[in-house]
Amino acid sequence: MDVIEELKRYREMDIPYSRVLSSMCTTPHEIAVKAHELFINTNLGDPGIFPGTVELEKKLIEIIGDILHCKTPFGYICSGGTEANIQGIRSARNVKARKEPNIVIPMTAHFSFEKICDILRVEVRRARVDENYKVDVSEVEKLVDENTVAIVGIAGTTELGQIDPIVELSKLAEEKDIPMHVDAAFGGLVIPFMDNPYPFDFINKAVTSITIDPHKMGMATIPAGGLVFREERFLRALEVETPYLTSKMQFTLTGTRPGTGVASAYAVLKSLGYRGMKRIVDECLRNTRVLLEEMSSLGFEPVIEPVMNVVAFKTESAEEIKAELYRRRWVISTIRNPKAIRFVVMPHVTEEVIKNFIAELKRVI
Amino acid sequence: MDVIEELKRYREMDIPYSRVLSSMCTTPHEIAVKAHELFINTNLGDPGIFPGTVELEKKLIEIIGDILHCKTPFGYICSGGTEANIQGIRSARNVKARKEPNIVIPMTAHFSFEKICDILRVEVRRARVDENYKVDVSEVEKLVDENTVAIVGIAGTTELGQIDPIVELSKLAEEKDIPMHVDAAFGGLVIPFMDNPYPFDFINKAVTSITIDPHKMGMATIPAGGLVFREERFLRALEVETPYLTSKMQFTLTGTRPGTGVASAYAVLKSLGYRGMKRIVDECLRNTRVLLEEMSSLGFEPVIEPVMNVVAFKTESAEEIKAELYRRRWVISTIRNPKAIRFVVMPHVTEEVIKNFIAELKRVI
Repeated sequence: MDVIEELKRYREMDIPYSRVLSSMCTTPHEIAVKAHELFINTNLGDPGIFPGTVELEKKLIEIIGDILHCKTPFGYICSGGTEANIQGIRSARNVKARKEPNIVIPMTAHFSFEKICDILRVEVRRARVDENYKVDVSEVEKLVDENTVAIVGIAGTTELGQIDPIVELSKLAEEKDIPMHVDAAFGGLVIPFMDNPYPFDFINKAVTSITIDPHKMGMATIPAGGLVFREERFLRALEVETPYLTSKMQFTLTGTRPGTGVASAYAVLKSLGYRGMKRIVDECLRNTRVLLEEMSSLGFEPVIEPVMNVVAFKTESAEEIKAELYRRRWVISTIRNPKAIRFVVMPHVTEEVIKNFIAELKRVI
Repeated sequence: MDVIEELKRYREMDIPYSRVLSSMCTTPHEIAVKAHELFINTNLGDPGIFPGTVELEKKLIEIIGDILHCKTPFGYICSGGTEANIQGIRSARNVKARKEPNIVIPMTAHFSFEKICDILRVEVRRARVDENYKVDVSEVEKLVDENTVAIVGIAGTTELGQIDPIVELSKLAEEKDIPMHVDAAFGGLVIPFMDNPYPFDFINKAVTSITIDPHKMGMATIPAGGLVFREERFLRALEVETPYLTSKMQFTLTGTRPGTGVASAYAVLKSLGYRGMKRIVDECLRNTRVLLEEMSSLGFEPVIEPVMNVVAFKTESAEEIKAELYRRRWVISTIRNPKAIRFVVMPHVTEEVIKNFIAELKRVI
């Protein structure tokens, strides 16, 4: 058998996104795929060979900086939110230089912070959240000490799409002179396009770094994570020497690094602009309401009123419902505390997808 | 201007691979690009959605395991050699569990070990190399102590393509009961296809992990790094829980992870097979000889007799030659000790490319 035919058979075993209501990734935008193909040979790990792609990345970081209220952003496009979070924390750890460093994060932070704890050997202190699953700032304050190298806030939690009180966290961080990292891997390309956006970004003085992933709501191709610093010295704190490359220093975690994510993210943000992005975000939020109404009519109650296009519904049978749906090739996810089924209403989760899903769910329950 | 037209202009500023004699990456194989495009929507970070791509990755790891003399390999396709090296060392660090861990590496190891030192907070001890730029095993032995969690050997050094005495290093590692990691990011897909291949892989008892990058000599699309463990427990030592994904645990460094590298690497290795790969490696080695002869006739002397398709030539004017060639849009690289200009003869560095390059070099010197 021809290898391409063989690959197609494997690919057909995958579940199409039209049956996936749990992912923070989506079918890349058409323009993203075109851009990706143009840059498939590029390697930003050796910038002297790819000065055009390097220039494009600078432009993209400026666009993202603009979205995040930062006039002179320093950052790069990386493998995803995990790398961005690792590097944000690593930078703060290196700048603060404590012998036994710790960071304070909300209990609702992404599981990648477990990796960070292990990889970077920093102690991770988890602050309790309030009844709305926002971190309790007084709890954060209690956990902070002289060895705290970063305070983390989440703008769009993975489980519920909740936004931490970044404004208050930033005030605390400023007072204590501790760098603050905002994980806006998901929310970073949702919140700015909402009506009355919550001020989660560099508008807050103590925020030193932000994770914002174009391959989530930015509809770029994978991999396209984003990390932006307010100050150059935080980027420099990540550098090592690169003796035999066309550059002298390297601040990225990876070496070889595709330019495809840069091109695809740029293509989407540049061609859609604020209005195009807002239209897509609005549609996702509208469909979240549709899902909420359908689920309510089936007797499901949301864990919190959805803040963005992430919503979870309480049920003791969460795992069973997920498993039975999976047997029928529908993918949802669950959270543990409280027991609930969880949905992410990405651009591919159209009203039609929701209707089809609800019809299947009715058969399951 | 249309965004695609704008992107094309940026892309045109990049230097084409036909003028690049310094990169360990290359134009991906035609079949790799086709495979890549089929898998552009995939995300191995959420395996339940992509069971076909997951299956394909298993098959690919088996193929790579077979190349590395390991019948039941455990591993995955990652962002590149840096992630693979980080994860190999992280695993050894976690398995050995020392309070102040150190690793012993050759002085010739890739600069990513600088990052590893900073990221993982392990002490990095550099062992001297002999006159052939192979690590001196007695020096390694002197540096090893009870806190050593890994000994590293390189199969295909970045600067010179040299292979460390892995057989002797493995004996030392076995004797001291220390895990051994082999960085074969480059050489892993060269050496097995050479005549009389040096035994650098799992055939050596103490070798616990190997870095082997399909996006280098495997002609896969970026990103496609590879990490293979002999034993499952070393992979498990990297795991964290993943509450809201379709999997329960995650051992990768990144979360979201493209399936494109898996598909493109599989397509190349499966369709070319041993004979096809050998033909390409043979051609690169033949062209390395062509370059060596051309350079010798210009009076340049190699730092060492080339072991594989990497070769460096001594010259006090290395930096000036590199800079002047770069002004003429030719890319080579340099090494510092001894001062030399360095070449990697990848599949895109054909005899014609070499002739064109030599003509330009004559004008420069």
